[in-house]
Amino acid sequence: MKIRRLSTRSSHFDAELKDLLALEAEQDASIVRTVVDILADIRQRGDAALLEYTRKFDHLDVHDAQHLELPQAELQAALASLSHEQRDALETAAARIRAFHERQRVEGWTYTEADGTVLGQRVTPLDRVGLYVPGGKAAYPSSVLMNAIPAKVAGVQELIMVVPTPGGERNPLVLAAAAIAGVDRVFTIGGAQAVGALAYGTETVPQVDKIVGPGNAYVANAKRHVFGTVGIDMIAGPSEILVIADGSTPADWVAMDLFSQAEHDELAQSILICPDAAYLDAVTESINRLLPQMPRAEVIRTSLTDRGALILVKDLVEACEISNRIAPEHLELSVQDPQALVPQIRHAGAIFMGAYSSESLGDYCAGPNHVLPTSGSARFSSPLGVYDFQKRSSLIHVSQAGAQTLGRIASSLAEGEGLTAHARSADFRLGH
Amino acid sequence: MKIRRLSTRSSHFDAELKDLLALEAEQDASIVRTVVDILADIRQRGDAALLEYTRKFDHLDVHDAQHLELPQAELQAALASLSHEQRDALETAAARIRAFHERQRVEGWTYTEADGTVLGQRVTPLDRVGLYVPGGKAAYPSSVLMNAIPAKVAGVQELIMVVPTPGGERNPLVLAAAAIAGVDRVFTIGGAQAVGALAYGTETVPQVDKIVGPGNAYVANAKRHVFGTVGIDMIAGPSEILVIADGSTPADWVAMDLFSQAEHDELAQSILICPDAAYLDAVTESINRLLPQMPRAEVIRTSLTDRGALILVKDLVEACEISNRIAPEHLELSVQDPQALVPQIRHAGAIFMGAYSSESLGDYCAGPNHVLPTSGSARFSSPLGVYDFQKRSSLIHVSQAGAQTLGRIASSLAEGEGLTAHARSADFRLGH
Repeated sequence: MKIRRLSTRSSHFDAELKDLLALEAEQDASIVRTVVDILADIRQRGDAALLEYTRKFDHLDVHDAQHLELPQAELQAALASLSHEQRDALETAAARIRAFHERQRVEGWTYTEADGTVLGQRVTPLDRVGLYVPGGKAAYPSSVLMNAIPAKVAGVQELIMVVPTPGGERNPLVLAAAAIAGVDRVFTIGGAQAVGALAYGTETVPQVDKIVGPGNAYVANAKRHVFGTVGIDMIAGPSEILVIADGSTPADWVAMDLFSQAEHDELAQSILICPDAAYLDAVTESINRLLPQMPRAEVIRTSLTDRGALILVKDLVEACEISNRIAPEHLELSVQDPQALVPQIRHAGAIFMGAYSSESLGDYCAGPNHVLPTSGSARFSSPLGVYDFQKRSSLIHVSQAGAQTLGRIASSLAEGEGLTAHARSADFRLGH
Repeated sequence: MKIRRLSTRSSHFDAELKDLLALEAEQDASIVRTVVDILADIRQRGDAALLEYTRKFDHLDVHDAQHLELPQAELQAALASLSHEQRDALETAAARIRAFHERQRVEGWTYTEADGTVLGQRVTPLDRVGLYVPGGKAAYPSSVLMNAIPAKVAGVQELIMVVPTPGGERNPLVLAAAAIAGVDRVFTIGGAQAVGALAYGTETVPQVDKIVGPGNAYVANAKRHVFGTVGIDMIAGPSEILVIADGSTPADWVAMDLFSQAEHDELAQSILICPDAAYLDAVTESINRLLPQMPRAEVIRTSLTDRGALILVKDLVEACEISNRIAPEHLELSVQDPQALVPQIRHAGAIFMGAYSSESLGDYCAGPNHVLPTSGSARFSSPLGVYDFQKRSSLIHVSQAGAQTLGRIASSLAEGEGLTAHARSADFRLGH
């Protein structure tokens, strides 16, 4: 297999790196039109439209919207149906994710000034959140845990999951994960119609305040469209891993870490950066030897060929500089002293330190969230967290004395902006 | 003047409230097309396109992109040109805003588990932020302070302001505010072309990581379009105030507070909720008496007539319930014991407590941010803050012992999801 080899010594390197990272997000106009129509229809006709689309797209023989809801007993039954090992793995993962996220909770605060004025910030959870879970083969129980647990830790009262069940097929692992994570209600709906039902509410599906969770192009477009009516999480691009290696990690381990990203889909991106050309050769050898054993070998091959790269650098300092230009979703510092590199890393969704911290441990059970900023958006955004399910309100309690000082400043600035009512409103409080 | 009067005693109340809050955000298709064209042109041709649009839309006779940048000396000159009172007001406001926002800074943390595994969250500032400031009469120096100071408190290294100067006209208050807030560079560009220059970078204007600040429909559409390439703040709707009164605040004060919102523009919304019908009458009388004195009387009249309302409720508990349904941008609790109501308020951008806390004090100088979630989005979002200019990276340093426990869990869950490379990547670390 041919993987692109780049070197910072080449005079073309900057252009080649830019080329490697380029990924035009094609907006399919026909998808956008379909989504807009479905959303308008759900908004207009509620349950009636929701039932029609669910019969049409998911081939569900359902005529009463009440039957779209799965009773809690079904979730518990799914949980009971798991093998001991599976259940234990899910529950341990959930406990670890909860423990990490509990440290993210933001608390409010106030302070009192000398004249008695109190200022502060109040923090409250969102009331109701919708969690989209894809149906079929892309149904990931780990994703249910990663999206649901931060919401419940934040104190969200009602967490509503939607998951399509095409032809009636339900994924017991997904339902079990919902039970463990404390999902409050589950509806077997999907696609743009499910996003519309959550955003606008129907007779049966309650309106939520924010919609999170991954989905296909229809779901992503629908979320983008309802943004403003409700909050949404980031629209995720293809997943990426960047490994910075010093050559001390077994080459097979790094090769498999690159595979674990590439097996997601053909557009996923796996990049290895190393100052040692011989180590790049060794990883290439591992890749070629290990690939035939992988069930998803074809996906991995396409991803690595089209979007993968091995980059030779001068040293680890240069490796970190390139990493900052990429702002990777997942960054593995597969080096002997990862702590020494962390201060040089400015942008990354998650930083995996040392040879034992494979990305896959973080994907499932280390504790931090696996929903991370993709496509360079780690330059300006963060992993999904408890803070995404909390909001702040400013508190302003101006004392009578405070109104005298602040009123004069506000009045002066308001006059400067030509906003007379603002100035008078402050003036009225003067001298009282 | 006729202001809508509603009462919760009416059987039509729910429908009337829904009607009052309805505001269809019309998407002008011709604006969208123009914006998309301008952005593509800036991306393609950089400075050359930027100069053309600036000559065309801002009537600036500029042929060298270097001349689009204002030297720091011009900002300092603008600051020196202010009256002592104006300068003092701006500097005091800036100091208060800085003091409040310094409490918002988020710090990173780590913790170590029994087997030596270290987990944590690293917090870093964005590298470079763009601040859009409108030109002409909507140029608000207070807005420069409110957007720029949180970014600098967060530790943003380079804050780049863009402000159109149509016909060469510069607003000294805006430039002085930029000097006080520590803006690093200023370019005299505006519109979609300025947003494009910040999002993609040109030969002269550096690419930023996030764009904040208010603007007209072209600017808002351009920000929406570049979202993903860079971060953006919320796209603001019309401004709103909701006053909950118990009748203890002088009616003139409340009337002027309603005006201060209404004077922004015809679509601004001012609502008063009170359990005392006689007080609603008194405020109506104040409105009619005070209105003719206001320079922006026509804007206020249109806003109050089209979008204002006085709502009679049973009691203050019901007032808070309605406030939660509205999720107002600004909420004044103009009551004798505001502290008693705060726990009942679930959604609001900023809560102004007591008769002396007029919204105008918060708009300029109390300290909290005046960039707040509009149109009910306080249900799921927060005031602009330092946290908007910081981002988090997860830290995962799994020990050799930790990899044994976590590896087994991850491997089991990965197999359940059909992701074999994920499982092997964890397995490789077992037994080593």
